[in-house]
Amino acid sequence: MGKILIFGHQNPDTDSIISSIVMAYFERKFGNDVEACRQGAINKETEFVLNRLNIQAPTLINDVEDGTEVILVDHANIKESVPNLDNAIILKIIDHHNVALNTSYPLYYRAEPVGCTQTVMYKLFRENNIEIDKTIATLMVSAIISDTLLFKSPTCTKEDVEVAKKLSEIAGIDIEEYGMELLKAGTDLSSFTIDEILNLDAKEKLLKDKSAIIAQVNTASIDDVLKMKAELEEGIRKIIKEKSLDIFMFVITDIVNSTSKAIVLGNSATIAERAYNEKIVDNLIELKGVVSRKKQIVPIMTENA
Amino acid sequence: MGKILIFGHQNPDTDSIISSIVMAYFERKFGNDVEACRQGAINKETEFVLNRLNIQAPTLINDVEDGTEVILVDHANIKESVPNLDNAIILKIIDHHNVALNTSYPLYYRAEPVGCTQTVMYKLFRENNIEIDKTIATLMVSAIISDTLLFKSPTCTKEDVEVAKKLSEIAGIDIEEYGMELLKAGTDLSSFTIDEILNLDAKEKLLKDKSAIIAQVNTASIDDVLKMKAELEEGIRKIIKEKSLDIFMFVITDIVNSTSKAIVLGNSATIAERAYNEKIVDNLIELKGVVSRKKQIVPIMTENA
Repeated sequence: MGKILIFGHQNPDTDSIISSIVMAYFERKFGNDVEACRQGAINKETEFVLNRLNIQAPTLINDVEDGTEVILVDHANIKESVPNLDNAIILKIIDHHNVALNTSYPLYYRAEPVGCTQTVMYKLFRENNIEIDKTIATLMVSAIISDTLLFKSPTCTKEDVEVAKKLSEIAGIDIEEYGMELLKAGTDLSSFTIDEILNLDAKEKLLKDKSAIIAQVNTASIDDVLKMKAELEEGIRKIIKEKSLDIFMFVITDIVNSTSKAIVLGNSATIAERAYNEKIVDNLIELKGVVSRKKQIVPIMTENA
Repeated sequence: MGKILIFGHQNPDTDSIISSIVMAYFERKFGNDVEACRQGAINKETEFVLNRLNIQAPTLINDVEDGTEVILVDHANIKESVPNLDNAIILKIIDHHNVALNTSYPLYYRAEPVGCTQTVMYKLFRENNIEIDKTIATLMVSAIISDTLLFKSPTCTKEDVEVAKKLSEIAGIDIEEYGMELLKAGTDLSSFTIDEILNLDAKEKLLKDKSAIIAQVNTASIDDVLKMKAELEEGIRKIIKEKSLDIFMFVITDIVNSTSKAIVLGNSATIAERAYNEKIVDNLIELKGVVSRKKQIVPIMTENA
């Protein structure tokens, strides 16, 4: 058998990249021949963490061969995974999302409804008496800060906060100071093309029978991002056409004030009006106090689809 | 909110019943308001355990109301669960099977590819420093003996054996002696009607696009069970017609010699001939050395469907 490949979801965020690196480290402690992989480009926030620690990005993959043994981290969704997942052998899943895949064989599945995969990983380290060194701790706490928007997201649980505090002690960082620095690094869109921005953290979702992409970017200033509104809209229209989408929602989240606005396009754009009881004006909708796609967007959009 | 309902799969075996009882005990340690339930009659093997310990059977349920919070044990399969599962809220899954359900929300999911749910449960007790008393240990080890056919099934792992040994010490039982007594109790079919026998441990499966039921009974003498062959065939034909099945496979497993024969009926019966390279003679096929539906029947039947 070849190496066991470990990877997170498409358009990887910081948790997906860090999960593959940390899980690979964990598996090697048991002598397993694994490779940390990723399904897409590294974003600026993740780059900030990897550069700080001088760690290489996981190997970029577009698919896996038939029969490849894989470990899925930070996703359990066939639509967010490699195209050939059905012909791979999933050995393990470590996750904190919904279940959106089937297997014909038993596997190791470890998921909890917490804010970040690393909060689950932390337990695996503890249960198996594997030491978390300074580098691993920095990686893990960075992912928790990223996924919970420094504990401000409604997806954040007491456990995420507790684990992040313990990890920040090992990492030797001031969690508030480091956290804001990390999140701000992720708001730098200057080096990306419009197409790249639309894809940075885009997830394909089925809202009942409506095909949707819900993309999200973090920023310290929504107005700054909206300077590109016309170009973003043009890019979104192209993607809607290519993928025959019913709706594309581009959510711009203000990490300082914990609120969002979204550009919404597509024949089913009015789902958002019903979901948030707000009018779409010039393709833009106010999402007051919304920061979490998982908790505050996907369920309510599905309900109103 | 009402109580959280905990239940295993339809046509419950010993592991499904014991999982609901043991998980209820575990959840109550955290102050959770739970109720152990079951989706079907108690079999003779399970009855032997419950009578020995003077424990009541879990509450019989046929379905759950919309919005009921549930914990699934010993299954993660929508076809083996309550009909209204899609409108319930699955809080947790503790299992050792394949993944065959989807959710729109994150949940606690704990599964491992081991021989019995109790091997996973044992870890939960240990990780949470919850004592396993003599009664709970007897329940848990009984389920492991049942699911692994006293360690002879190919589904049995080193971990199942190790956990069973530790539990047998707490339970104060001789595992071989108690084990054979338990398994033999399960072979007593005398009090059941033909329809009940066909349903005792029957699982609906999709073999590619073919709808199948694969039922299994344990026995100390296959010939004894085959004395009812004509009546069993009549019952099977009735079920095939009622459920529009492509194939019904009634597997009779000799627990002393670790081998099986199966009565196979339905328009797709020849799947079994291809799967085992054996002829079906008078509706009966030899399954040499086969004892595990999960490892030695479902995958190979699916492959040949």
